[in-house]
Amino acid sequence: MFENRVTELRPVFNPRSIAVVGATTDEHKSGSKWVLGLRAAGYRGALYPVSPRGGSIAGLTIYPSLESVPGDVEHVIASVPVASALQLMDECIRKHARVVMFFTAGFAETGSQAGRELERVMLEKARAAGLRIIGPNCIGSYCPGDRIPLGPAAPGRLGIPGKTGFISQSGGIAAKLVENGIARRICFSKGVSVGNSIDLDASDFLEYFGGDTGTNAVGVYLEGTRDGRRLFRTLRSVCGLKPVVVWKGGRTAAGAAAARSHTGSMASSAPVWSAALRQAGAIEARSLEELTDCLLLLQQLGPIRVRNVAVVGGLADGGGGISVSGSDACNDNALAVPELSLGTKETLQQLIGEVGSILRNPVDVSPAQFRGPDTLFRALETVAHEPGIDVILLQEDMDIMLSFLGRAETQVINAYLATLPKVCGKPLVMVLPSGSAETERVEVEAQLLAAGVPVFPTMARAARALGLLSHRPVPAQ
Amino acid sequence: MFENRVTELRPVFNPRSIAVVGATTDEHKSGSKWVLGLRAAGYRGALYPVSPRGGSIAGLTIYPSLESVPGDVEHVIASVPVASALQLMDECIRKHARVVMFFTAGFAETGSQAGRELERVMLEKARAAGLRIIGPNCIGSYCPGDRIPLGPAAPGRLGIPGKTGFISQSGGIAAKLVENGIARRICFSKGVSVGNSIDLDASDFLEYFGGDTGTNAVGVYLEGTRDGRRLFRTLRSVCGLKPVVVWKGGRTAAGAAAARSHTGSMASSAPVWSAALRQAGAIEARSLEELTDCLLLLQQLGPIRVRNVAVVGGLADGGGGISVSGSDACNDNALAVPELSLGTKETLQQLIGEVGSILRNPVDVSPAQFRGPDTLFRALETVAHEPGIDVILLQEDMDIMLSFLGRAETQVINAYLATLPKVCGKPLVMVLPSGSAETERVEVEAQLLAAGVPVFPTMARAARALGLLSHRPVPAQ
Repeated sequence: MFENRVTELRPVFNPRSIAVVGATTDEHKSGSKWVLGLRAAGYRGALYPVSPRGGSIAGLTIYPSLESVPGDVEHVIASVPVASALQLMDECIRKHARVVMFFTAGFAETGSQAGRELERVMLEKARAAGLRIIGPNCIGSYCPGDRIPLGPAAPGRLGIPGKTGFISQSGGIAAKLVENGIARRICFSKGVSVGNSIDLDASDFLEYFGGDTGTNAVGVYLEGTRDGRRLFRTLRSVCGLKPVVVWKGGRTAAGAAAARSHTGSMASSAPVWSAALRQAGAIEARSLEELTDCLLLLQQLGPIRVRNVAVVGGLADGGGGISVSGSDACNDNALAVPELSLGTKETLQQLIGEVGSILRNPVDVSPAQFRGPDTLFRALETVAHEPGIDVILLQEDMDIMLSFLGRAETQVINAYLATLPKVCGKPLVMVLPSGSAETERVEVEAQLLAAGVPVFPTMARAARALGLLSHRPVPAQ
Repeated sequence: MFENRVTELRPVFNPRSIAVVGATTDEHKSGSKWVLGLRAAGYRGALYPVSPRGGSIAGLTIYPSLESVPGDVEHVIASVPVASALQLMDECIRKHARVVMFFTAGFAETGSQAGRELERVMLEKARAAGLRIIGPNCIGSYCPGDRIPLGPAAPGRLGIPGKTGFISQSGGIAAKLVENGIARRICFSKGVSVGNSIDLDASDFLEYFGGDTGTNAVGVYLEGTRDGRRLFRTLRSVCGLKPVVVWKGGRTAAGAAAARSHTGSMASSAPVWSAALRQAGAIEARSLEELTDCLLLLQQLGPIRVRNVAVVGGLADGGGGISVSGSDACNDNALAVPELSLGTKETLQQLIGEVGSILRNPVDVSPAQFRGPDTLFRALETVAHEPGIDVILLQEDMDIMLSFLGRAETQVINAYLATLPKVCGKPLVMVLPSGSAETERVEVEAQLLAAGVPVFPTMARAARALGLLSHRPVPAQ
């Protein structure tokens, strides 16, 4: 499905050549930053800075106009004044560019009649010539596999290529998604910020990601839509193929008013959106954190559904309170924390049941810390082998861990945890809260993430993401 | 009020002498870690390690028994086997100790008849002799002003003394509270973990904090209570004196079952607790993060109530999407984001209103970035001076900020932000999300916190804490 859309939009994400109009010798200009960012990231296609002032940047000749560029240009990045937009459209068409992305803002989102009229004429020109527009008022596309960073801001911050796609109406949210992705090892295939989306919109890119074999799951930040009927029809089709997580900005009255002046979106009421998302089979996130957490879980564990969680505390975290609040967090998200079977509890009792033991589920493994790693590993495997359990939710506090057990034993335990899902054939979801041993925590997080284990900062966020995935709706037929 | 309780419990928090029973020459034993922690923190009272094996630790003689200690002992820390508990009680009484804290676990929380019986006899002995017990199954008290760290785990991690008190039924949660406090500059007066609380319980310590002139606000983590009537009566009295934030663990069925085996608490249903907390005038938090966030806000801004928020995005964060979702977060927590007056909007239009401007409230100040700090400052002051606005909620992304504006200008802006509340006479609540420039973010966070500005990791968490404080109940008469 959607093969034509994938072919058509190839120059958005995998352009063979890019011209940046508005890149000058002044490295502080946005256009210049775009060129520097692409160079620093190692973009391997043809790259042409364009500005009437000429000169050079990053060792590249600046061409005075799009037409004076010697080679073909598939993808144009426009960082020009709004007054030059129509003229640039004509140049793009004469150059036979396939897509033009307008970083330029100041169109319909200002609320002015002139802005709306300008958008109308641009669209007319584009449609007549078969040129496609991204934006305006956006920061364009992102493809770490082709070494195309997102936006002009952070040269070199590219991230590891992966299988997660995203569409964001807001450039700022898109940048935060990529930042969070880099920090938490969410690996993106491609992403796009669509801004005012006068031509290519969220529906077009949903079709693209639906058909893109390199994308397994899609995250979406939307403030509104011009064609809700098509959006939800498309969403339903794509949700039948791969999971889609949608965060709707402008859910509330204040948010909706802001969205109008941000991307010119007319937002509907929250209950209407929620119902439509549910019918389409999309997972609804309510914040950047929920969106990011769901994408991480999908990447690490695939589109799992779980019912029964084993909550394990006490890996040097003081156990009891964490176990209690972890259980609350699971129940809050309609996940069960069922009592373990008698046989399992007896085995745990023999292994770690000295005093004050919490062995019912949640399980507090703190006594096992003092009996050496092997006892701890056997206790964790005993819990994992309980037949009714679908997933192990385990909290580890790196600072207390290091202080109690020392560096060598902590390393042994973390290396084991990375292998636990393979050893037991059940997924492990880790919670590594921030603390004083931040350097070590980040190292262990990276190690676990690389081994396929999803890592969250709190029990509440882990349980929320597990709940959202497990109770995701089935697309209506 | 509660002067007697304050006098009575002075040896819990400000003991002139401490004996640690179970501190040996083996530095890996919990008792030994307690002595090492107190020494590293610089506790200035008399400190006596006690163990029948003798020897010395940290330059201190280990006395063979409590009775052989040469001086008075006010406060006993007991890290002994459960089988020695009764004998130690007798020794404490003979030594005329004022309070004994049992780190020792394995009492009623195991569910055994023997555990319950042991607790009963201990309590009987204590009552007869006027000795008070903290715990058992807890990590005791914390008083950074007297250089008493919390628990045996992290020597030297003391924190800055301040005006926030806490009571936690769980030692693990108490440790996380102090860790979070150190990371986010929440400065504690005193704190206590109460565990099974067979003698001194949450109500006693609520009375203490109610009367303690060094404490302005109290955080509580509770899993249950033996005397709900007294707890809520006390809570209502204390809430009339200073704000109390309560996080109830074991709200759900799974959490309640866990709480029973953790601290032996019989938990009631969530709606019953919520209603009772509301009637008592307490602020109800539902996670460690909410509890911490409320305590930070109370410390930095006092017990404020706000109605109208100015949401400001665009401090190098891509503005629009953050403004939209920040507005959603405010509305989610019943805070208004009212449209600014025509005069204010016109001033903003002149200052920063070039293209795509969001000036209605939320306000996106991103265009001001490119016009130098003075324009930005004038824009922020214009928003702050709008009469209807009670608080400014501002997000700043350190990584994008540094990349766009460079280090020098970023420093100028952050130094200004620290002064904004004084300049404008309105509180500022900052959101500094994690990103790539983590070192710089932590520096700026510390700078703002020291200046009295509360700092949160996300708009959602800031708005949640503001909402909880602003809509806190008034204690029933």
